[in-house]
Order: sequence, then structure tokens, then C-alpha cells
Amino acid sequence: MDTECGTGDCLGWAARDPSGTLSPYKFDRRVLRSDDISLKITHCGVCYADVIWTRNKFGDSIYPLVPGHEIVGIVKDIGSDVKRFKVGDHVGVGTCVNSCRSCEYCNDFQEVHCSKGSTHTFNALDSDGTITKGGYSSYIVVHERYCLKIPDGYPLDKAAPLLCAGITVYTPMMRHKMNQPGKSLGVIGLGGLGHMAVKFGKAFGLKVTVLSTSESKREEAIKLLGVDKFVISSDKQQMESITKSLDFIVDTASGDHPFDPYLSLLKVGGIMALVGFPSEIKIHAASLNVGAKTISGSLTGGTKDLQKMLEFCSANEIYPDIEVIDIHYINDALQRLTKSDVKYRFVIDIENSLK
Amino acid sequence: MDTECGTGDCLGWAARDPSGTLSPYKFDRRVLRSDDISLKITHCGVCYADVIWTRNKFGDSIYPLVPGHEIVGIVKDIGSDVKRFKVGDHVGVGTCVNSCRSCEYCNDFQEVHCSKGSTHTFNALDSDGTITKGGYSSYIVVHERYCLKIPDGYPLDKAAPLLCAGITVYTPMMRHKMNQPGKSLGVIGLGGLGHMAVKFGKAFGLKVTVLSTSESKREEAIKLLGVDKFVISSDKQQMESITKSLDFIVDTASGDHPFDPYLSLLKVGGIMALVGFPSEIKIHAASLNVGAKTISGSLTGGTKDLQKMLEFCSANEIYPDIEVIDIHYINDALQRLTKSDVKYRFVIDIENSLK
Repeated sequence: MDTECGTGDCLGWAARDPSGTLSPYKFDRRVLRSDDISLKITHCGVCYADVIWTRNKFGDSIYPLVPGHEIVGIVKDIGSDVKRFKVGDHVGVGTCVNSCRSCEYCNDFQEVHCSKGSTHTFNALDSDGTITKGGYSSYIVVHERYCLKIPDGYPLDKAAPLLCAGITVYTPMMRHKMNQPGKSLGVIGLGGLGHMAVKFGKAFGLKVTVLSTSESKREEAIKLLGVDKFVISSDKQQMESITKSLDFIVDTASGDHPFDPYLSLLKVGGIMALVGFPSEIKIHAASLNVGAKTISGSLTGGTKDLQKMLEFCSANEIYPDIEVIDIHYINDALQRLTKSDVKYRFVIDIENSLK
Repeated sequence: MDTECGTGDCLGWAARDPSGTLSPYKFDRRVLRSDDISLKITHCGVCYADVIWTRNKFGDSIYPLVPGHEIVGIVKDIGSDVKRFKVGDHVGVGTCVNSCRSCEYCNDFQEVHCSKGSTHTFNALDSDGTITKGGYSSYIVVHERYCLKIPDGYPLDKAAPLLCAGITVYTPMMRHKMNQPGKSLGVIGLGGLGHMAVKFGKAFGLKVTVLSTSESKREEAIKLLGVDKFVISSDKQQMESITKSLDFIVDTASGDHPFDPYLSLLKVGGIMALVGFPSEIKIHAASLNVGAKTISGSLTGGTKDLQKMLEFCSANEIYPDIEVIDIHYINDALQRLTKSDVKYRFVIDIENSLK
């Protein structure tokens, strides 16, 4: 075997350098511990984080790098102390695969906020000194604490995007009580995260306005996603027509953008939840003070919220809109993702294409 | 009489131009309406807003300008329909003297957020076409809706600063549930607003840390205000020693300052309430997202909160620390205020010095 491809019984696709180009790579997973489950991966969602780290955008990438943190699969083995899962269960793994499990945040199942630092699903130093490898791979071994039960009957491919895109918008929406029927929600950006915010908003009984830079998304947003209003955010007149009309905004835009115009859309006491990572936020104090407005950050979510969200999606038949791809298409898919050319999330069919 | 001084039975002090220099000025108050009370002013607090508008810092000052929106006095006359007050009552008037009284915010006694715009106590166009004149004057005529009952026995001079400085920090502290004993509060800036945030924090049972640029305030803050910790915000080591230790921050600084270092002091889910008006707020997204932190603006408060605050201060013996001055000292006082040279609020003894 070519050493470029590595050795081991886990077949993955890895980036080798900041070009970010992915190619097959074999490696070993850890030996199953008593609290671990071993998960045969069927699907993995493609998140913008996969672009960021495969291309070393933050300067901390460790190669070979196997991305993927929207992982879904079927339990193939369990450790002797595993209580919550059995072989054959449908299980999801999100952005976090380890944490101290004893701090106040872990005790509250907000593991992503662990005081000692949580361990990201890929490209992170785990407590045993290894570097975590993500879901663009045939299987994964994870402590059961960080595994979610996929509700019976929920399609595995559609479950994948819930584990990052879904939870990233669900967590702040629940925290800020954006689930009050009749209230009005604005969603900035209609990508993987934004389209989930729209779906949650509609399920919560909100009046949903999409704030987009792209006229091309209007028709589908209204007809297929059921959006109540579609506003081009660069059009001053359209923006002014909805001044002080929104109770909440979920801002999913990661590119740099002004904040004052969006804050002006909020009613008195309105809340903007920030889930993207623009390089800087600049706000005039009056945009917050006049009308007592709030901007609040958020970061995926813990296992308690993840499990609740999965059950909510199942009960309310909320399904991400996905484009299922072969692993061989992943480099094209990542390229398209950088251009927001996807409706609305790529999901890799690991089971049928990674062999 | 010199026309420079105006005519009328209300004696005030007014600024005549952007120099902001105040001098005696006579004018008329409106004829008492059925819902009005006429208040003989005994005291008026000196707010930084008085500097801003007497010096035309926002470019919208209308001269002659009589400032003052921390007004306390004794009712000398009431209109025929006035229900809540009688002659002789001790009454306060804050930053708002008119609003539509029919929108959702007025109906909720959040008059400062009135949909049709609230009328500021001075330098504002009132619904009758006159320009409002503030509390640096012998009496004022105000609709009873905007008048607060000063609790029995509460000193009138000390009540004055509650009507702007006090309510400005009380409102966001209550809104964001900063009244949970045992939690930790940071207060940025130890001026008129900051020292009230400290007093409320201590009354709520919080552990209070003052974040100041001025070492000279340390001893008094700890000994007289009972502050638990005093941190020089420019000292990186001191700041790092309290990383992730605060549940809440009240930011009273109006000067430009960085936000990221303060946000790093908040625990997961921590909230910073902004009450000052720096020229711009710049934040890195990670400062909000990592740790799910919040920054929230605020603007004085409505009559319901004002009355609650006055009663809370009376019941808990919370008194602003003030420096009582003659009206003749006002130009010096405003000058000192621009240098933060006051502990912690000037209050003009109108009754005994404005004659």
C-alpha cells in the first residue's frame, strides 16, 4: 500500500496540506473502551468548518486531516459499560467527542462549553494524545456520552445536518425563547444554517422573514420553505419597509456585513442571535441602546439540546433539505460550498461510496 | 429686566450657545391642564446629558436651553383630574415628560420606548409645539403620568440621581435578572451610573467587582461602597486574574473602549448590559460566540420600573452618594463633570440657591 494512503482498518478521506484537496487515507481508530461505542458511518454532512480546517484558514490544521462533524451511522460494537446504546441503533455524533465530564457545564450537558475545553470531532488533541479524525471515514469510536439517539424512522441522511447546522440555530432559538407562536423572526443568510432556522421558525409558529443578498433564492424560499417574506438586505427601501417589525433575528452570515441596518429591524427588546463568525462586529451604541436591543453569540450546543432537537424534528417532521453526494465528489462539493452553491446541505453517502 | 434673561414666572438657568455656559433665564411654564401637576423643584441632579446638550454635542440643541432631568420637588398645584398626587406630595420627574400613552410600550409603562417617540424632559419638541425645559428651574408642569412618588422619608436631594443614573442601571439589571444573590457582577466605570450599579449589586447580594481606569478610586470603592474587588482594566495581569469569573457586567463607560477584554471576563452565558454611548462598539465574533455571551443595550426606564426602583431604594436604604451644590456653582460643576471629578453625582440645591 502507498504510504500516502496510510495504514489501518478505517478508511477515510483526508486533506494533506492547505490546498485542502481530499483523497483516500487509511488509519486506525482507538481500541474500544468500556464506555465507547463503535459506529459504522452511513452519512456525514458537509459543513463550512470542513473548508476552514482542510484549508488551514485558522492556521491550526494538523495533516493528514479527516474532516466531518455531522456524523450518522449504525452501532456495530459497544463497550462493556455502555448503557444507552446497543448494536444496530441509529446514532449521531456532532461537533464534540470529549470533555471533562465533571465541570458545571458538562454536568449541565453543555459539553461544548466545558471549563477544561471540549474536544472537537476532528483536528483536535484528544485526552489520550491522539488527534481526532472526523466523519469522512468508514467508522468512528466515541464515548457514549457524546452520541445521540436518532429517533426511529428518521432518515439517516437527513439527520446528519441536524448535528451541526441544526443545533447551531436551535440552541440560541430555544435559549432566547424564539419559540413563541405569532412572533416574527428574521433569518440572515439562507444556507445550511439559515434554512434550518427557517424550518424551526415555521415549526414554532413564527412569521419568518428571510434577509438575503440573493434574489435568486426568493422563489424557492417562499414556495418550498414557506417563508412569509423575502427581503433583499442591500435594498434600502425593502429594509425600511420592515423597520422595527421583528422580535428576533438569527444571523447565520459568516462574511463581513454591517449590523446596524439589521438591528434597526428589531422591535423594542428584540434579540439578534449571532451564529456566524464575521471577522469583526461593529455596532453603533444607539443601535443597541435605543430600543433596548440585544446581540447574543452562540456555539453549536450540548448533548441535552441535541437530543431534544432530534426528537423535536422527528415529532414535527422537520427535515433538512440536502444534496446527497458520493465521497468522490467531495472536492467539487467543498468548492461549490465556498460559493454557497448548495440547497442547502451536502451530505456524503459514506455507506455506499466510501469503500 | 434684561431681555437676555427672558420673562416669565419660572426662574431657570439656561445655556445660550454651544459654549454651554449657563446663566439665569426667566420663562413661562404652560398653564396647568387637568392631568398636570405643578411641581416646586427642590433639587435637580446633574447628568452628563446636561453637558452634551448645553454644549450642542449632538448638533440638535435649541437655545436658550434649560437642562436637568433628575428633578425632585413638592407638588404645589394639581389639575382637576389628577388622581395620584395631592398638594404637598414629594414627586420626581425623570427623563421623559410626554409620550403617546396608547401604544403597546406606553400601555406597558415603557414610555421611553413609545412607538411615536417619547418627549425628553428638556430640549425636545412637545406635542403642543413648545420646547421642553428641564429642572434647572424653580418649577415645572408635568402630566401626572410621568411623575413618580418619592417614598415617605426618602431624602429629596438623594432621590434626584435615581431618576436618571439610578434607573439607567436598574432597568437592565432587573431585565437581565442580575438580582440573583451569590452571582458576580462587574461594573465598568465608577461614576454616577457605576456607583449606583454597585449599590444595587450589593443590595441584590451580588459579589461586585469594579473595573476602573483610575487607581485613585480603589480605596473609597472598597471601604465606602463595599466593593468586593477593584480591578484596573488597563492592567492585563489583573484582568486575566478574573477571566471567566463574572455572570454580569454593567458597562457605564461612555468613552471609547475595547469590548473584547471585558467580554473575556464573563462566564459562559454571561451578559453585558450597555448603558453608555461610546462612538462605536467593535467586537470579535468569537468574544460573543465562544461562551454564548450577550451584549444588550438599555435606555433609562419607564414609569413602572422607576416607581419600583424608588420603593426598592427606600426599603433597602440605598442612597446615591452626592455632592450638593448651589446653582451658582453649576458651570464649575459641569466642567468638573467632564473630568469625572465628582463622587458620584452633583445635585443642585434648587430650593435654597435658585432665587
